[in-house]
Amino acid sequence: MATKEIMAKMILDRWNASIKNFDDLLNTLSDEQLQREIGPNKNRGIYLLGHLIAVHDLMIPLLDMGQAMYPNLHKPFVELADKAAEKIPSAKELREHWIKQRELLKQKFDHLKPEDWFEKHTAVSDEDFIKEPHRNKLNVILTRTTHLQYHIGQVVILK
Amino acid sequence: MATKEIMAKMILDRWNASIKNFDDLLNTLSDEQLQREIGPNKNRGIYLLGHLIAVHDLMIPLLDMGQAMYPNLHKPFVELADKAAEKIPSAKELREHWIKQRELLKQKFDHLKPEDWFEKHTAVSDEDFIKEPHRNKLNVILTRTTHLQYHIGQVVILK
Repeated sequence: MATKEIMAKMILDRWNASIKNFDDLLNTLSDEQLQREIGPNKNRGIYLLGHLIAVHDLMIPLLDMGQAMYPNLHKPFVELADKAAEKIPSAKELREHWIKQRELLKQKFDHLKPEDWFEKHTAVSDEDFIKEPHRNKLNVILTRTTHLQYHIGQVVILK
Repeated sequence: MATKEIMAKMILDRWNASIKNFDDLLNTLSDEQLQREIGPNKNRGIYLLGHLIAVHDLMIPLLDMGQAMYPNLHKPFVELADKAAEKIPSAKELREHWIKQRELLKQKFDHLKPEDWFEKHTAVSDEDFIKEPHRNKLNVILTRTTHLQYHIGQVVILK
Protein backbone atom coordinates (compact mmCIF):
# COMPACT_ATOMS: atom_id res chain seq x y z
CA MET A 1 0.00 0.00 0.00
CA ALA A 2 1.39 3.40 -0.97
CA THR A 3 2.02 5.93 1.80
CA LYS A 4 -0.85 8.28 0.84
CA GLU A 5 -3.22 5.32 0.81
CA ILE A 6 -2.06 4.26 4.29
CA MET A 7 -2.51 7.76 5.64
CA ALA A 8 -5.93 8.28 4.09
CA LYS A 9 -7.05 4.92 5.53
CA MET A 10 -5.78 5.80 9.02
CA ILE A 11 -7.72 9.05 9.18
CA LEU A 12 -10.85 7.92 7.35
CA ASP A 13 -11.04 4.83 9.58
CA ARG A 14 -11.08 7.17 12.61
CA TRP A 15 -13.73 9.39 11.01
CA ASN A 16 -15.96 6.46 10.05
CA ALA A 17 -15.62 4.83 13.48
CA SER A 18 -16.47 8.15 15.17
CA ILE A 19 -19.52 8.71 12.96
CA LYS A 20 -20.69 5.20 13.84
CA ASN A 21 -20.05 5.85 17.56
CA PHE A 22 -22.26 8.93 17.47
CA ASP A 23 -24.88 7.20 15.37
CA ASP A 24 -25.13 4.29 17.81
CA LEU A 25 -25.25 6.71 20.74
CA LEU A 26 -27.99 8.81 19.11
CA ASN A 27 -30.07 5.68 18.59
CA THR A 28 -29.99 4.93 22.34
CA LEU A 29 -31.18 8.42 23.29
CA SER A 30 -34.82 9.47 23.33
CA ASP A 31 -35.95 12.92 22.18
CA GLU A 32 -36.57 13.68 25.85
CA GLN A 33 -33.01 12.77 26.82
CA LEU A 34 -31.71 15.04 24.03
CA GLN A 35 -33.53 17.98 25.66
CA ARG A 36 -31.34 17.69 28.73
CA GLU A 37 -28.21 19.71 29.36
CA ILE A 38 -24.89 17.81 29.50
CA GLY A 39 -24.20 19.68 32.75
CA PRO A 40 -25.74 22.54 34.78
CA ASN A 41 -26.15 25.52 32.41
CA LYS A 42 -24.26 23.69 29.68
CA ASN A 43 -25.34 22.75 26.14
CA ARG A 44 -28.33 20.51 25.55
CA GLY A 45 -28.00 17.27 23.60
CA ILE A 46 -30.26 18.63 20.86
CA TYR A 47 -28.00 21.67 20.43
CA LEU A 48 -24.95 19.42 20.11
CA LEU A 49 -26.72 17.27 17.52
CA GLY A 50 -27.55 20.37 15.46
CA HIS A 51 -24.03 21.69 16.04
CA LEU A 52 -22.41 18.53 14.68
CA ILE A 53 -24.69 18.51 11.63
CA ALA A 54 -23.86 22.18 10.96
CA VAL A 55 -20.08 21.76 11.43
CA HIS A 56 -20.07 18.73 9.13
CA ASP A 57 -22.25 20.64 6.66
CA LEU A 58 -19.67 23.43 6.49
CA MET A 59 -17.09 20.84 5.44
CA ILE A 60 -18.87 20.15 2.14
CA PRO A 61 -17.87 23.39 0.36
CA LEU A 62 -14.54 23.41 2.23
CA LEU A 63 -13.72 20.03 0.66
CA ASP A 64 -14.92 21.27 -2.74
CA MET A 65 -17.74 18.71 -2.69
CA GLY A 66 -20.65 20.96 -3.58
CA GLN A 67 -23.03 23.16 -1.64
CA ALA A 68 -23.87 22.85 2.02
CA MET A 69 -27.07 20.82 2.58
CA TYR A 70 -28.46 22.76 5.56
CA PRO A 71 -27.27 26.40 5.49
CA ASN A 72 -30.21 27.33 7.74
CA LEU A 73 -28.54 25.38 10.57
CA HIS A 74 -25.25 27.30 10.52
CA LYS A 75 -26.52 30.30 12.46
CA PRO A 76 -28.43 28.62 15.29
CA PHE A 77 -25.87 25.85 15.82
CA VAL A 78 -22.49 27.39 15.06
CA GLU A 79 -22.76 31.18 15.31
CA LEU A 80 -25.13 31.20 18.26
CA ALA A 81 -24.83 29.53 21.63
CA ASP A 82 -27.44 27.09 22.87
CA LYS A 83 -30.82 28.70 23.70
CA ALA A 84 -29.82 31.91 21.87
CA ALA A 85 -31.75 31.08 18.68
CA GLU A 86 -35.49 31.75 18.81
CA LYS A 87 -36.47 28.52 17.18
CA ILE A 88 -34.60 25.34 16.30
CA PRO A 89 -35.70 22.20 14.42
CA SER A 90 -37.18 19.32 16.40
CA ALA A 91 -35.08 16.33 17.44
CA LYS A 92 -36.98 14.24 14.87
CA GLU A 93 -36.00 16.60 12.03
CA LEU A 94 -32.39 16.80 13.17
CA ARG A 95 -32.14 13.01 13.35
CA GLU A 96 -33.35 12.83 9.73
CA HIS A 97 -30.80 15.46 8.67
CA TRP A 98 -28.03 13.53 10.45
CA ILE A 99 -28.88 10.33 8.57
CA LYS A 100 -29.17 12.02 5.15
CA GLN A 101 -25.95 13.93 5.68
CA ARG A 102 -24.08 10.84 6.81
CA GLU A 103 -25.09 9.05 3.60
CA LEU A 104 -24.05 11.96 1.39
CA LEU A 105 -20.70 12.39 3.09
CA LYS A 106 -20.00 8.66 2.82
CA GLN A 107 -20.78 8.73 -0.91
CA LYS A 108 -18.56 11.79 -1.47
CA PHE A 109 -15.68 10.51 0.67
CA ASP A 110 -15.69 7.03 -0.86
CA HIS A 111 -15.20 8.62 -4.28
CA LEU A 112 -11.94 10.35 -3.47
CA LYS A 113 -8.63 8.73 -4.31
CA PRO A 114 -5.78 8.93 -1.78
CA GLU A 115 -3.97 11.64 -3.74
CA ASP A 116 -7.16 13.77 -3.83
CA TRP A 117 -7.12 13.88 -0.03
CA PHE A 118 -3.74 15.63 -0.10
CA GLU A 119 -5.00 18.51 -2.24
CA LYS A 120 -5.59 21.83 -0.56
CA HIS A 121 -9.02 22.59 0.88
CA THR A 122 -10.87 25.66 -0.43
CA ALA A 123 -9.93 28.02 2.41
CA VAL A 124 -6.22 27.92 1.54
CA SER A 125 -4.72 29.93 -1.32
CA ASP A 126 -2.35 28.23 -3.77
CA GLU A 127 0.55 30.35 -2.47
CA ASP A 128 -0.08 29.49 1.17
CA PHE A 129 -0.51 25.81 0.33
CA ILE A 130 3.01 25.65 -1.07
CA LYS A 131 4.36 26.77 2.30
CA GLU A 132 1.76 24.83 4.34
CA PRO A 133 1.03 21.56 2.56
CA HIS A 134 -0.49 20.09 5.71
CA ARG A 135 -3.55 22.29 5.13
CA ASN A 136 -5.12 19.65 2.96
CA LYS A 137 -8.55 17.98 2.75
CA LEU A 138 -7.51 15.08 4.94
CA ASN A 139 -6.53 17.50 7.68
CA VAL A 140 -10.10 18.85 7.65
CA ILE A 141 -11.37 15.31 8.32
CA LEU A 142 -8.77 14.90 11.08
CA THR A 143 -9.78 18.07 12.92
CA ARG A 144 -13.50 17.33 12.52
CA THR A 145 -12.92 13.82 13.89
CA THR A 146 -11.31 15.11 17.08
CA HIS A 147 -14.11 17.71 17.36
CA LEU A 148 -16.72 14.95 16.96
CA GLN A 149 -15.09 12.80 19.66
CA TYR A 150 -15.02 15.80 22.00
CA HIS A 151 -18.79 16.12 21.71
CA ILE A 152 -19.44 12.37 21.80
CA GLY A 153 -17.74 12.42 25.21
CA GLN A 154 -20.31 15.00 26.28
CA VAL A 155 -23.45 13.50 24.72
CA VAL A 156 -22.68 10.09 26.26
CA ILE A 157 -23.34 11.72 29.66
CA LEU A 158 -27.03 11.97 28.73
CA LYS A 159 -27.42 8.17 28.75
CA MET B 1 7.80 18.68 2.37
CA ALA B 2 7.69 14.93 1.80
CA THR B 3 4.35 13.15 2.29
CA LYS B 4 5.41 11.31 5.47
CA GLU B 5 6.58 14.58 6.95
CA ILE B 6 3.25 16.24 6.11
CA MET B 7 1.25 13.42 7.66
CA ALA B 8 3.41 13.23 10.81
CA LYS B 9 2.99 17.00 11.22
CA MET B 10 -0.79 16.81 10.79
CA ILE B 11 -1.22 14.18 13.49
CA LEU B 12 1.42 15.44 15.91
CA ASP B 13 -0.02 18.97 15.65
CA ARG B 14 -3.40 17.52 16.74
CA TRP B 15 -1.79 15.59 19.58
CA ASN B 16 0.21 18.57 20.83
CA ALA B 17 -2.79 20.90 20.61
CA SER B 18 -4.93 18.38 22.52
CA ILE B 19 -2.31 17.93 25.24
CA LYS B 20 -2.15 21.70 25.60
CA ASN B 21 -5.98 21.91 25.71
CA PHE B 22 -6.10 19.43 28.59
CA ASP B 23 -3.18 21.09 30.33
CA ASP B 24 -4.85 24.52 30.21
CA LEU B 25 -8.13 22.98 31.38
CA LEU B 26 -6.45 21.17 34.28
CA ASN B 27 -4.86 24.43 35.40
CA THR B 28 -8.31 26.06 35.70
CA LEU B 29 -9.70 23.25 37.86
CA SER B 30 -9.20 23.04 41.61
CA ASP B 31 -8.61 19.73 43.39
CA GLU B 32 -12.14 20.07 44.74
CA GLN B 33 -13.61 20.43 41.24
CA LEU B 34 -11.70 17.32 40.16
CA GLN B 35 -13.48 15.34 42.88
CA ARG B 36 -16.83 15.93 41.19
CA GLU B 37 -18.49 13.52 38.80
CA ILE B 38 -18.92 14.65 35.17
CA GLY B 39 -22.55 13.56 35.48
CA PRO B 40 -24.78 11.70 37.98
CA ASN B 41 -23.05 8.36 38.77
CA LYS B 42 -20.44 9.02 36.08
CA ASN B 43 -16.64 9.23 36.34
CA ARG B 44 -14.98 11.83 38.53
CA GLY B 45 -12.52 14.32 37.12
CA ILE B 46 -9.72 12.81 39.21
CA TYR B 47 -10.41 9.36 37.75
CA LEU B 48 -10.27 10.77 34.20
CA LEU B 49 -6.98 12.51 34.98
CA GLY B 50 -5.50 9.23 36.24
CA HIS B 51 -7.05 7.39 33.28
CA LEU B 52 -5.42 9.69 30.73
CA ILE B 53 -2.02 9.41 32.45
CA ALA B 54 -2.34 5.61 32.48
CA VAL B 55 -3.47 5.33 28.84
CA HIS B 56 -0.64 7.60 27.71
CA ASP B 57 1.77 5.63 29.90
CA LEU B 58 0.81 2.41 28.11
CA MET B 59 1.83 4.06 24.84
CA ILE B 60 5.49 4.24 25.88
CA PRO B 61 6.31 0.52 25.47
CA LEU B 62 3.82 0.27 22.57
CA LEU B 63 5.85 2.88 20.69
CA ASP B 64 9.09 1.11 21.64
CA MET B 65 10.17 4.14 23.69
CA GLY B 66 11.15 2.39 26.90
CA GLN B 67 9.32 1.31 30.02
CA ALA B 68 6.07 2.72 31.31
CA MET B 69 6.62 5.44 33.94
CA TYR B 70 3.66 4.66 36.22
CA PRO B 71 2.71 0.96 35.98
CA ASN B 72 0.97 1.26 39.37
CA LEU B 73 -1.67 3.47 37.71
CA HIS B 74 -2.70 0.95 35.04
CA LYS B 75 -4.92 -1.13 37.31
CA PRO B 76 -6.89 1.58 39.15
CA PHE B 77 -7.33 3.79 36.08
CA VAL B 78 -7.63 1.43 33.11
CA GLU B 79 -8.62 -2.02 34.36
CA LEU B 80 -10.95 -0.80 37.09
CA ALA B 81 -13.88 1.58 36.89
CA ASP B 82 -14.01 4.75 38.96
CA LYS B 83 -14.43 4.15 42.70
CA ALA B 84 -13.56 0.44 42.30
CA ALA B 85 -9.95 0.82 43.44
CA GLU B 86 -9.45 0.98 47.22
CA LYS B 87 -7.01 3.83 47.08
CA ILE B 88 -5.87 6.22 44.36
CA PRO B 89 -3.20 8.96 44.34
CA SER B 90 -4.18 12.48 45.31
CA ALA B 91 -4.99 15.13 42.70
CA LYS B 92 -1.69 16.85 43.60
CA GLU B 93 0.34 13.68 42.85
CA LEU B 94 -1.55 13.05 39.62
CA ARG B 95 -0.97 16.60 38.44
CA GLU B 96 2.78 16.11 39.00
CA HIS B 97 2.72 12.83 37.07
CA TRP B 98 0.83 14.51 34.21
CA ILE B 99 3.47 17.24 33.92
CA LYS B 100 6.46 14.84 34.10
CA GLN B 101 4.89 12.50 31.58
CA ARG B 102 4.06 15.31 29.20
CA GLU B 103 7.71 16.39 29.22
CA LEU B 104 9.01 12.86 28.64
CA LEU B 105 6.58 12.19 25.79
CA LYS B 106 7.48 15.49 24.13
CA GLN B 107 11.18 14.65 24.34
CA LYS B 108 10.64 11.16 22.90
CA PHE B 109 8.25 12.30 20.15
CA ASP B 110 10.46 15.20 19.06
CA HIS B 111 13.28 12.73 18.46
CA LEU B 112 11.46 10.62 15.90
CA LYS B 113 11.92 11.24 12.19
CA PRO B 114 8.85 11.08 9.92
CA GLU B 115 9.79 7.63 8.57
CA ASP B 116 10.11 6.29 12.15
CA TRP B 117 6.45 7.13 12.73
CA PHE B 118 5.46 4.75 9.95
CA GLU B 119 7.17 1.77 11.55
CA LYS B 120 4.97 -0.81 13.20
CA HIS B 121 4.14 -0.45 16.89
CA THR B 122 5.13 -3.29 19.24
CA ALA B 123 1.73 -5.00 19.37
CA VAL B 124 1.81 -5.90 15.66
CA SER B 125 3.81 -8.85 14.30
CA ASP B 126 6.02 -8.37 11.25
CA GLU B 127 3.74 -10.66 9.21
CA ASP B 128 0.56 -8.79 10.14
CA PHE B 129 2.23 -5.44 9.50
CA ILE B 130 2.88 -6.38 5.86
CA LYS B 131 -0.87 -6.85 5.38
CA GLU B 132 -1.86 -3.98 7.68
CA PRO B 133 0.68 -1.18 7.26
CA HIS B 134 -1.70 1.33 8.82
CA ARG B 135 -0.99 -0.24 12.22
CA ASN B 136 1.97 2.03 12.73
CA LYS B 137 3.23 4.27 15.55
CA LEU B 138 1.54 7.35 14.16
CA ASN B 139 -1.80 5.54 14.24
CA VAL B 140 -1.32 5.02 17.99
CA ILE B 141 -0.95 8.80 18.40
CA LEU B 142 -4.02 9.33 16.23
CA THR B 143 -6.25 7.03 18.28
CA ARG B 144 -4.94 8.40 21.59
CA THR B 145 -5.64 11.95 20.37
CA THR B 146 -9.29 11.20 19.63
CA HIS B 147 -9.52 9.41 23.01
CA LEU B 148 -8.02 12.46 24.72
CA GLN B 149 -10.48 14.82 23.04
CA TYR B 150 -13.36 12.57 24.09
CA HIS B 151 -12.38 12.99 27.74
CA ILE B 152 -11.53 16.70 27.41
CA GLY B 153 -15.15 17.15 26.31
CA GLN B 154 -16.18 15.52 29.59
CA VAL B 155 -13.74 17.20 31.97
CA VAL B 156 -14.66 20.64 30.60
CA ILE B 157 -18.11 20.12 32.16
CA LEU B 158 -16.51 20.42 35.62
CA LYS B 159 -15.63 24.09 35.03
